[in-house]
This record gives sequence, structure tokens and C-alpha cells, in this order.
Amino acid sequence: MIKIGIVGYGNLGRGAEAAIRHHADMELVAIFTRRDPKTVINLDKSVQVWHVDKARDFVGEIDVMILCGGSANDLPEQGPYFSRFFNTVDSFDNHSKIPEYYNAVHASAMASRKTSAISIGWDPGLFSMNRLLAESILPQGKSYTFWGKGVSQGHSDAIRRIKGVKKAVQYTIPVQESLKKVRDGEMPDLTTREKHRRECFVVVEEGADKEKISHEIKTMPAYFKDYETKVTFISEEEFMRDHTGMPHGGFVIHSGRTGAAAAHNQVIEFSLQLESNPEFTSSILVAYARAVYRLNREGQIGAKTVFDIPLAYLSSRTPEDLRRELL
Amino acid sequence: MIKIGIVGYGNLGRGAEAAIRHHADMELVAIFTRRDPKTVINLDKSVQVWHVDKARDFVGEIDVMILCGGSANDLPEQGPYFSRFFNTVDSFDNHSKIPEYYNAVHASAMASRKTSAISIGWDPGLFSMNRLLAESILPQGKSYTFWGKGVSQGHSDAIRRIKGVKKAVQYTIPVQESLKKVRDGEMPDLTTREKHRRECFVVVEEGADKEKISHEIKTMPAYFKDYETKVTFISEEEFMRDHTGMPHGGFVIHSGRTGAAAAHNQVIEFSLQLESNPEFTSSILVAYARAVYRLNREGQIGAKTVFDIPLAYLSSRTPEDLRRELL
Repeated sequence: MIKIGIVGYGNLGRGAEAAIRHHADMELVAIFTRRDPKTVINLDKSVQVWHVDKARDFVGEIDVMILCGGSANDLPEQGPYFSRFFNTVDSFDNHSKIPEYYNAVHASAMASRKTSAISIGWDPGLFSMNRLLAESILPQGKSYTFWGKGVSQGHSDAIRRIKGVKKAVQYTIPVQESLKKVRDGEMPDLTTREKHRRECFVVVEEGADKEKISHEIKTMPAYFKDYETKVTFISEEEFMRDHTGMPHGGFVIHSGRTGAAAAHNQVIEFSLQLESNPEFTSSILVAYARAVYRLNREGQIGAKTVFDIPLAYLSSRTPEDLRRELL
Repeated sequence: MIKIGIVGYGNLGRGAEAAIRHHADMELVAIFTRRDPKTVINLDKSVQVWHVDKARDFVGEIDVMILCGGSANDLPEQGPYFSRFFNTVDSFDNHSKIPEYYNAVHASAMASRKTSAISIGWDPGLFSMNRLLAESILPQGKSYTFWGKGVSQGHSDAIRRIKGVKKAVQYTIPVQESLKKVRDGEMPDLTTREKHRRECFVVVEEGADKEKISHEIKTMPAYFKDYETKVTFISEEEFMRDHTGMPHGGFVIHSGRTGAAAAHNQVIEFSLQLESNPEFTSSILVAYARAVYRLNREGQIGAKTVFDIPLAYLSSRTPEDLRRELL
């Protein structure tokens, strides 16, 4: 049995707890939280909940810590810290800071002879794998990543900061005509506006100026200005009924040409359609916990990304079984 | 520079020669054929063409041999033979014989301390990777593989063996309604007939009995009997104009449920839309030639499949660059 710990019990942590139940070779030993452990209500009452400061006491009892904190504030500190004591998996997704984060976790894991899979999830993660794979196979081609339809927390937060807004959700939606052009192998140059559009559902305080709010959203720099943005005002009941989920997804599409005369178009597409973004991400983290455990037992230490880990390590099946059943 | 040799100069070999030109770190040293080398007209006249019996003389001059022969007759012999002298990549695609083939190539490559990537292509290959990945992430789900729209050589050959048939091509086509059910997360149990249909375009000899031929096709056991099969008779001109390409493709779709109450459906989809099946397959072989070269330099010897090789090995970029640009 692979003994797992979860650090952080928000949406990701809850998803990880549920996901572990589907893996017969894994056992959840404990959940660690910054809150008062008594206030945490988790799925399985037989699983211990501890304050995060107690985690160090579990050295030797936990094989892999799944770090379920956020990339902005939690992981930059937790990643290097926990890899001093445990094998770890995390979903660090601040693309521009990955090199720096990798270096910090790598140094820490090398010193402790642990293995740490960083930036695991779907983007970075499964989408990155498909970008690398497609580019390596068809180097004379072009890759496109589209996100959505899905909820962007950052954009939803930005709307909620506007005066008079009570509740808001923003969906990022890929522009269908552009998707079609890419799939048809046209290799278009696409502007920001041509790739995604933004759809906002907003609940306002009584007496708020809807026109003013709508204008403020649509002209907001960085978030909405460069996009076709649609704002719909709805009642609080509608909001609670239709817009509290966390769907997401997206597409990585690569098209390239092959043959002596480059006459043939080839299209590789990977897509996700997710009803729960955090539950899916945590399912990926759990599969990579198995990989990290095995890599460490083989002495493959340090920080690893999805580019470094052979797929066979993710599966509970034997190599013989994989070749016979899945190849 | 990675020095490459190609064994076998049919559709795959020609595709490999064209693909190598797009990789700045690779050089095609020689092509080996069972035909009289003088009769082989390849793309680049500066590349030597030799009889396959001469290949052994190139030990030390070629880093990786790309084996472009067929799985029925060529590879069972060539795989174990060439891995005695060279690192190799091949597209062995006889699914039921993969374990046996793996063992033969592995024994040979271990003895010579070479590295051999077997069963590289898109199925087995990219499709297998997606089956493993999806099943590992969502073990409580179900995977489906659909092929097409694409030409099946085996089925086309079967039609051509019927008396009175001059030319024929058969397209395997996924059933759209079933694709939709799978994408919607219904996890249906699908019969053979519900997964694919077959479309045949046939040119007959003068005076042939079309009705009889059509009946013979539609009732042919194993090939057509269990499918919805459509037969269209066309002129030889139409055939030459519209049906001499080698398109193919397909879909690997996995849907699974996550969360404490298994309330959320998650769909992972990988698809290919190929205008030239052999050119795409050979493009994959070429990318894996780079991986095999590197693995061997690191002492990772023996037979490998797509499950064993980290994606980073496929790319000419450095690990730092991959993390910064593609992760």
C-alpha cells in the first residue's frame, strides 16, 4: 500500500480524498490543514486530521504528500518545505514562475533524496504533454491551446470587486470559428479576441446601476478589454441554481504538414470536458503520487515534471499487463 | 548529429526520409532495401541506398535504424536481427503478438547493449498512451477507441480478392451517434456494429455482376458481416481521382466520474485526423529515434515502448527550455 497524506483541504484536497478511494493500492493516512483540525469535516471519519505543523511527525508513516494548496501563496513555501521530508506532488500552475519553483523544489528534494512531481494537473500537465508530443512529431506545424468552456476564478473575482456586484461568475469560451480553422489545418495567426470570448453572469445589489457595471466589466484592462465580453444580469436564485459548479476544459490542437511536398495535413487534438475542474486536477495528482512513490524507490530523486515521468509509472498494472492489454 | 538509417523503402520509409529533414539534429546516412538498390528512387540523391545485406557494415556509422517493414513478415525477423547491431525503432502493430515480439527484441537488445523502441506509431502508440493515461487518472471510468475515417488496407484487399473486382478501397467510419453517447459520459456498451460502419468504393471488370459482388462483400465473415456496410460502384477515373490517398485517424475517449458522490462527469479525448497515415506514423518513428539515441547514451538498454519513455526524450529542446516554454 502506498501511504498518502493530503496537505490543504479545500476543493483540491477534497477531490484528492475522493479520488484515492478508487485506487486499491493507496491508503490515505492523514489530512493536514492550517485551520483548526476540529472544524474540518472530511469524507472518511477514520482518516486523521491534523494541524499542518504536525506533518513532520509523520516522516516514515507517509510515502507521498499531495500538496493541495494554491500557487500564489501556499506552494512557493510548502513545495520546498515538504520535499525536505516527504516525496511530494503538487499542481503549481503559475507558468512564468515554474523555472524558479522547479529549482527551489529540486534543490530541496535532492538534499533529502526525495522525489517531487511539480506542476501536475491539466495545464500545466496533460496539455503540456500534448504540446511537447505534437511539436516533436510534427516540428513543421503549429500548436494552439484553447481553454473552456469553463469558470475562470480570477475573472470572476475581478467582477466581484466592482461596486454594486453581489455575485458573479465568468466563463471563458473558445471561439468556435477559430477552433474550426485550426482543425482544418489553416494554421491561422489568432489574436486574443479571436481565440476566446468571455461570458459573465452577474447578481447586483438592490438599486445598483447595471449599465455602469456592465461598462466597467467590458472595459476592464487585461481581464476583459481585449475580448468580446457578454454580461448578463440574473437573479440570485438563478445564480445559485445554474452557476455554482466548477466546469472547465479546453483543447490542444496541433496541425502540421508531412511528406516530400508537404502536401498532407495532419491534425492532433487533445481535449477535456470537465464537470469539476478541481476534482479532475486532484485525480491527476493522485495518479502521479503513485509515480513519485515508485521513482523514489528506484532512486530517481529530485523535482520531476510530466515531461520526465514515463507513463507506465502512473498505472497500478504490471509492465507485461500494460503491453498486453493497453498497447 | 544523430545518424539515422532507414530499413525498407515503402510508404513508411519514404515518409521517414521526408520527416528527418525537419529535424536539425538528425542526418540520414543510408537507406537499406531488399530490392536492387539501383531501382530505388529516393528524395535526396546524396543519401546512399544499399542492399539490406550491407547494413551490418554500418555498425559505428549509424546511431539508430528506423525499421520501416511490415508487421506480418518483415519485423518479426528484422526487429531481433537489427537490435543485435543497432539501436532501433519500429512500428510493430500486431497487437496480439506484442508480448512475444517484445521478448524477442528485448533479449537481443540486452545482449548487444542497444536500445529498441517497439510498436511506435499511433495505434499502438499515441492511442495506447492516452488509454493508459486516462485509465490511471479516472480508474472508475471507461475507455473507447474508434478508428477512422480511414482506409483499411486489410479490408480493401479482401474486396479486391473477389472475382470481377478491379479496384477497391474500404473506409472504416466511426458511428457518430455512438461517439456522441461516449462524449456525453453515458458509458454505453457498444456492439461491433454500433462502433464502426464500412464504406466501400469498387471498380468492376466489364460485365461483372455488381449485385453478386455487393452481396459477397456484405456477407463476408469477420470483415463485413457484423457491420453496416455500404458498397458504391464507381468508374476507374473516379477511383483514381478521389480514392488513392491514405487518410486515417480516430478517437480515444475516456469518461469517468469523480467526487464523493461520483456526481461529476469528466471526459478526456484524444483524436487524430490524418491525410496520410504512413507519413504520420513515420513522423512518430523519427521523433522516437531521438529518444532511443539518448536513452542508449544513458545506458537505458533493451526494448522500450511508449509507456517507458519520458516525453522529454522526444524533443530537441533542453529540459530547462521545455519547462519554460511548453509546461
